[in-house]
Amino acid sequence: MPDTSTGSQSTSPRWVYTVHLDQPSFEDNTADVDRLLRELRRRSGWHNLTCDLEWMNELPSMLRDSGFALRCTLFSDGVSAVLTGAAPAGEDRPALGLAVDLGTTRYVLQLIDLASGQALGKMDRANPQGEIGPDILTRIHHAARSEGLEQLQDMLIRDMNQAVEELCAEQGVSSQAVHNVALAGNTAMTHLFLGLDPRWMIREPYIPVVNDPGLVRAQALGLAIHPRARVYCFPNIGSYFGGDLLAGIVFSGLDVRDEPTLLVDVGTNAEVILGNKDWLIACAGAAGPALEGGVSKIGAQAGPGIIDSVQIDPESLDIEVHSIEELPPAGICGSGIIDLAAQMFMAGLLDFRGKMVPERAPELFVQEDGIWNFRLVPARESGTGADLLIGQPEIDSLVRSKAAMFTILETLVGSVGIGFEEIGAFFVAGTFGNFIKPDSAIGIGMLPDLPRGLFQSLGNSSLGGGVRLLQDPEAISRVKKARERITYLELNVNQAFMNQFSAAKFLPHTERSKFPSVRIPS
Amino acid sequence: MPDTSTGSQSTSPRWVYTVHLDQPSFEDNTADVDRLLRELRRRSGWHNLTCDLEWMNELPSMLRDSGFALRCTLFSDGVSAVLTGAAPAGEDRPALGLAVDLGTTRYVLQLIDLASGQALGKMDRANPQGEIGPDILTRIHHAARSEGLEQLQDMLIRDMNQAVEELCAEQGVSSQAVHNVALAGNTAMTHLFLGLDPRWMIREPYIPVVNDPGLVRAQALGLAIHPRARVYCFPNIGSYFGGDLLAGIVFSGLDVRDEPTLLVDVGTNAEVILGNKDWLIACAGAAGPALEGGVSKIGAQAGPGIIDSVQIDPESLDIEVHSIEELPPAGICGSGIIDLAAQMFMAGLLDFRGKMVPERAPELFVQEDGIWNFRLVPARESGTGADLLIGQPEIDSLVRSKAAMFTILETLVGSVGIGFEEIGAFFVAGTFGNFIKPDSAIGIGMLPDLPRGLFQSLGNSSLGGGVRLLQDPEAISRVKKARERITYLELNVNQAFMNQFSAAKFLPHTERSKFPSVRIPS
Repeated sequence: MPDTSTGSQSTSPRWVYTVHLDQPSFEDNTADVDRLLRELRRRSGWHNLTCDLEWMNELPSMLRDSGFALRCTLFSDGVSAVLTGAAPAGEDRPALGLAVDLGTTRYVLQLIDLASGQALGKMDRANPQGEIGPDILTRIHHAARSEGLEQLQDMLIRDMNQAVEELCAEQGVSSQAVHNVALAGNTAMTHLFLGLDPRWMIREPYIPVVNDPGLVRAQALGLAIHPRARVYCFPNIGSYFGGDLLAGIVFSGLDVRDEPTLLVDVGTNAEVILGNKDWLIACAGAAGPALEGGVSKIGAQAGPGIIDSVQIDPESLDIEVHSIEELPPAGICGSGIIDLAAQMFMAGLLDFRGKMVPERAPELFVQEDGIWNFRLVPARESGTGADLLIGQPEIDSLVRSKAAMFTILETLVGSVGIGFEEIGAFFVAGTFGNFIKPDSAIGIGMLPDLPRGLFQSLGNSSLGGGVRLLQDPEAISRVKKARERITYLELNVNQAFMNQFSAAKFLPHTERSKFPSVRIPS
Repeated sequence: MPDTSTGSQSTSPRWVYTVHLDQPSFEDNTADVDRLLRELRRRSGWHNLTCDLEWMNELPSMLRDSGFALRCTLFSDGVSAVLTGAAPAGEDRPALGLAVDLGTTRYVLQLIDLASGQALGKMDRANPQGEIGPDILTRIHHAARSEGLEQLQDMLIRDMNQAVEELCAEQGVSSQAVHNVALAGNTAMTHLFLGLDPRWMIREPYIPVVNDPGLVRAQALGLAIHPRARVYCFPNIGSYFGGDLLAGIVFSGLDVRDEPTLLVDVGTNAEVILGNKDWLIACAGAAGPALEGGVSKIGAQAGPGIIDSVQIDPESLDIEVHSIEELPPAGICGSGIIDLAAQMFMAGLLDFRGKMVPERAPELFVQEDGIWNFRLVPARESGTGADLLIGQPEIDSLVRSKAAMFTILETLVGSVGIGFEEIGAFFVAGTFGNFIKPDSAIGIGMLPDLPRGLFQSLGNSSLGGGVRLLQDPEAISRVKKARERITYLELNVNQAFMNQFSAAKFLPHTERSKFPSVRIPS
């Protein structure tokens, strides 16, 4: 199929079609709307394409004013397909898509030129529902109160409308030019965005209202974009396996690869998918908030002034930290803590149980209330004016998290009867993935000891999946197929799992043969 | 497929399904909406079934309150399929359909119990757009004025809402129980109902806005029925071939018969369809308003006190008229005029050119302004207190109309290379069809001289088609197929046609051999 999308350099199909229709005649007196849909169905292959009544009223004049040449935007969820935009082909109005990564804490918007597939502008904002509660559970309980659900949805939609308005203004385009929205979020966030009551998600057997909401009218949600725009939400597999994961699969290409591939998304939960073009298996487990930098006293999300990398000379014990934008350090993010733990272990400042060894360098440790703390940055160099300290409890928490992560990975890979050595690629998604150093994660035994070249950082794969879907209609069928063949592995926290978990609570592991490349300090 | 619709006696599928879902479990944690749609898709065969966002919010509680047993109403246009109704299976709430025959002058509503297919109540009302203009053209011009289209749509929808309210009240049901609407009308009326601008229909090459509007949200039209109800409008083939004709095809079964069959719908235009299960060919032509009783001074639409049948004893010349409800006669309808002309011809009161023969019985004729009139009912017996007279111009008009009708039929049948003798059945639709006597229509040469048993009156086939569609989902695919294979024969009013038309302007015809059964008066 030749791509005639205006301005496109690529030959892959897009959601935008420029059509030049035969003018009506006595020989072909097909009605205006049917004439347009007939051509769009033929060109796009979406045989079930329909259009809203409101278009029917606009199209006759638009067709005649444009000499029957229109640029049309379509959207589909794989079940239905609709006309979301139409404008005279001659006018150089952009047709925009909006990818949304809807996180519990923050959300990210990315504008896309649907004709060229080009990314136009991006915005990262706090999820305003954080006012109600930082965590999902608080919000779900709030939604159960009178007007609570409406309030949660309303605050998000209003904030998004403002964000879209600003983002479009920055790009010199109208928010009315946004016709297609692709949103990926966890199941609860997607429910709150759609105004769907998530109460049954937190009661056994944990049932969402909907797995695959399909195309939803932007107008029904109160989104101030084109009135006939549609929103596609990546489907979830269950209450604890959200559309963001399917977006990640599409973005990483896990579902089209030959060799078994791992995809890890680390947040409060570790979400792990293993698969290739033939099969997909997923599981999620509490990896502990340590990796998000959530519990550490100095823990923080990656941002300016936050330490993302630590080096400790194993001989001199000189500490070098790197902070984002090289500002005076004020905190440490998840990948920084992993780096720190790995470096402390290599330098003999942590033992194989993850306990601090103050006798190795007493000047680097301070004891407060009987708890040992490691002084990462002295007050005079810190951005806070105080010592940046990491305590034994934070390290303990990290060790539990890394043990959980490794056990989940071991369980998942073992469940399909393969070993880590058969893994062809290892994708790490999220902000975490951007900063993590495989050497450090392997050094503490969080990730398996594979050739470092197999590890790839995916960045924001949830947003990336949305962008991909707005660039390439074929991604819809990939989502559909992936969703159909994915198996969800219910983590059976039995004695065998607990034994594996306990063995993983050492640095890097009780079975040192599992980490041959890790140089164990003597 | 077993029919489990509540209360249904029939084994044919319906739009209503009672489903008993497996309760969610850890083994099957499919979300509520997906669980319901999965089962409905399986049961109905509509694999592309979707539901509105608003349902998603209602379904979780409804499912739990009902023990996961719902009675659901679906609707489809053959392209998309939607959930239009859902209620706990235990509640004995009816799920209703509404068939609408939307005529230019009048419209008819028929309530249907969608589960049983049973007809519940019917209402016939004047089309309130008649206030703006009695004919289509006036309304199309009015629609072109500022707010004219909105006004026309609004007056119709408001009147319909009132009618539906009354009709439902009569049946002791709520108008909110109406989930599916099937509407059949001519192309212009359908446009005005949908609020679509019909201006291009009256300019060459006569293009409607849409042929096949698909399922339209009742709410978008302002219809005060269930908020998630959908309206299906029978598709049109062009500006002069409306959805009412496709409804007629489905109702008559023309599209599934073995032998070639004719369907005639007489109004201002004569619309004729010829076909069987393999092919369909249609044409429409101005048959003249005489058949509607529109131009005759005493002409009227069938109704109380209107003459629908006339007998004249060929010997004694005694005239006997029958009026509807046997009230004192006040006018004559189309079928009455045909009867009258046939009887006058048989009695020697009209000659073979259709001219009055006053010398045959001078007491029955009066001359006014040099024009002969036949006194059908004397003043003392009439409902108006005056003589009911029919003038030569009215007879002339009838003769032109019948000649046009016969020529159209001859042309259509000839176009597929068959003769009238191969016709297996001859359906006459509309009010006209209810009253017409084949003997009379053949007697004046309007309909071909076929065995009388082949003629069948269809009644309101436009309403009947809507009812059929609400009773039987398979009718949708019949409409779709009929629409795809119907050929529209553009009447080529050339010399050959004019010659045939001229030959048909005699009673019954210049070629008497074409009407062997008609006893020609000497």
